[in-house]
Amino acid sequence: MVVIPTASEMPEAAGQVYVRVFKKLKVTNVKVLNISSREESCLEDHLEVIKKAKGIMFTGGDQLRLTAIFGGTEIMRLIKYRYYKEGLVIAGTSAGAAAMSTQMIYQGPSDGFIKGAASFTAGLELLNDAAIDTHFIARGRIVRMVQMIATNPTFIGIGLEEDTGVVIKKGQELEVIGSGLVTIVDGRTSTYTNIYEIEEGAPVTMRDLRVHLLGKGDTYTLEIF
Amino acid sequence: MVVIPTASEMPEAAGQVYVRVFKKLKVTNVKVLNISSREESCLEDHLEVIKKAKGIMFTGGDQLRLTAIFGGTEIMRLIKYRYYKEGLVIAGTSAGAAAMSTQMIYQGPSDGFIKGAASFTAGLELLNDAAIDTHFIARGRIVRMVQMIATNPTFIGIGLEEDTGVVIKKGQELEVIGSGLVTIVDGRTSTYTNIYEIEEGAPVTMRDLRVHLLGKGDTYTLEIF
Repeated sequence: MVVIPTASEMPEAAGQVYVRVFKKLKVTNVKVLNISSREESCLEDHLEVIKKAKGIMFTGGDQLRLTAIFGGTEIMRLIKYRYYKEGLVIAGTSAGAAAMSTQMIYQGPSDGFIKGAASFTAGLELLNDAAIDTHFIARGRIVRMVQMIATNPTFIGIGLEEDTGVVIKKGQELEVIGSGLVTIVDGRTSTYTNIYEIEEGAPVTMRDLRVHLLGKGDTYTLEIF
Repeated sequence: MVVIPTASEMPEAAGQVYVRVFKKLKVTNVKVLNISSREESCLEDHLEVIKKAKGIMFTGGDQLRLTAIFGGTEIMRLIKYRYYKEGLVIAGTSAGAAAMSTQMIYQGPSDGFIKGAASFTAGLELLNDAAIDTHFIARGRIVRMVQMIATNPTFIGIGLEEDTGVVIKKGQELEVIGSGLVTIVDGRTSTYTNIYEIEEGAPVTMRDLRVHLLGKGDTYTLEIF
């Protein structure tokens, strides 16, 4: 198991937390890949670790660090190759989960329903036609999710709550794990948004979103577009 | 040839401009698909037009109208299917060009180098691993392009100037046409950006971008990630 703590500003500490967690789970061969810059990411030693990995875990922190540091690098190309062609298992928590999907929300306070108050970019593109956001209920993030969906309803929003996750198989079969809720926000059947008519600073509205709240064991198939 | 003027707030007029242009080019069978809402987009008549189309042209206007109205709809699914599986030719100008790529920049004034002053989302995903922006030199848009690339350098920036375009074959072989310049901004080999360290409102910096200025007849191969 390889732990990548790049999202964290304290990567040493973040890495060690997961070494201990995995040890408790009887996973003994745990390596921490402490990459904190684009240049470092290409070191031959790091590529070798990824080539041999059985699983990769991205820790929390800031998802923008993950895409800004890994985007377009040799190591990311290798991770994608191993994921798409060889079935490598990849996990992430908090920022590490948010960075998985093609749409990634990286900024947006509780007033994220104001046009321009939320920021999105492409994530690491390990999960397509979706956008993962975390601490979803606790931090009232449905509004920034809806702003993102308003810009392009192709992307199904997946909002994770604390102590809750999704296991995704074949890039589209989701199953909820953990003690809390997963919120699915589907804008594909929506009929209206004002986002292209309003100025920056005005509230974004949207009609006919389909929302599901799912718990442990519930499944959802992400329709690939 | 099917003209889609959805990006424009005056779609009737925008459509007719291109009907005349195509007539001058001896293209006589030109249909305008005047879709201005998500609900309208699904009408059986519209789907029939797309099923028979030899080419589609997206006019200018606001790219956010295109993604907000077409994203996740049945008609877009059909357009993608015909493009990826049947080699349908798709063209776009201004907003219509900007909406083609996976990364789409939809807002960002000339101070687009300030963190948070530029907005991105996913485009219609007809061109992958790239981001097209237009009026690139005239409107000083390299700075908003660089902010986008800083967030995730996977995406190669393609900046089109007036009266200038790119013909793209096999999703990656570019050739420049027209009288002006195309600016290619490649952040994949970049070594540093401050974007994940600064607050909103501070200037975004980046080192070691590779930039190409290309003219008529020049080619560039977009490396798919």
